Amino acid sequence: MKHTSYAHGIELNLPFDEAVSRTTAALKDQGFGVLTSIDVKETLAKKLGVDFRKYVILGACNPPLAERALRSELEVGILLPCNVIVYETDSGKSAVSAMAPLAALGILGDNDALNDVASEADQKLRAALEALESTKIAS
Amino acid sequence: MKHTSYAHGIELNLPFDEAVSRTTAALKDQGFGVLTSIDVKETLAKKLGVDFRKYVILGACNPPLAERALRSELEVGILLPCNVIVYETDSGKSAVSAMAPLAALGILGDNDALNDVASEADQKLRAALEALESTKIAS
Repeated sequence: MKHTSYAHGIELNLPFDEAVSRTTAALKDQGFGVLTSIDVKETLAKKLGVDFRKYVILGACNPPLAERALRSELEVGILLPCNVIVYETDSGKSAVSAMAPLAALGILGDNDALNDVASEADQKLRAALEALESTKIAS
Repeated sequence: MKHTSYAHGIELNLPFDEAVSRTTAALKDQGFGVLTSIDVKETLAKKLGVDFRKYVILGACNPPLAERALRSELEVGILLPCNVIVYETDSGKSAVSAMAPLAALGILGDNDALNDVASEADQKLRAALEALESTKIAS
């Protein structure tokens, strides 16, 4: 798994559509429902008439964690849900990256309760990616 | 207008539903379509059986800016769309807060092209909030 300043990411040896459905299932196993889904390719084609790679932004929400976050800081909805992106790589495989909640927390300032929630969310999102990798379809 | 480390916010002397529709219209005037809408109160009631204030998370997208951002950093979808929240305040008014894209950029690291896009998005979101305030319904 790769880690950048704001995301955890893996690459899967799967076509895009199957990567999206397996990602959705892996998130569900960690208690995250996909509340929103933005088809980036379709949106850019429709609004701007331009071509873009297959790319989806999934808004993943773990309700108990979301509730705790919102009750500890009302405006944290600005950073919810946790985004997970899936896109087609240049070699025709699929990349899956999840927001790193602890990085998002960096712009929020000190809040111990929120820090605990972000740590839990971070662990669960990484667990979802690890489960995807362990199915032996990781490239 | 208030500014925190990650958001710009105003308060409107309007009931929640009207604040949501006026916010959506003000975003549209700045080129932002609302691609997603999460009813937080409904989601928490349905998933957890708990009561929460009226609260919506709108995913606002300005397609030309989103395209530029994605072409300068493919994984920036992790931070898209720009969230705008509307919620009922304790006094029955409505709070509207928009993500500050420049703050989000802080966790992305150096990228000049992305910095320009974030500045433009920041200006447009603030313009939308200023327009809402100037309709003389601001409290």
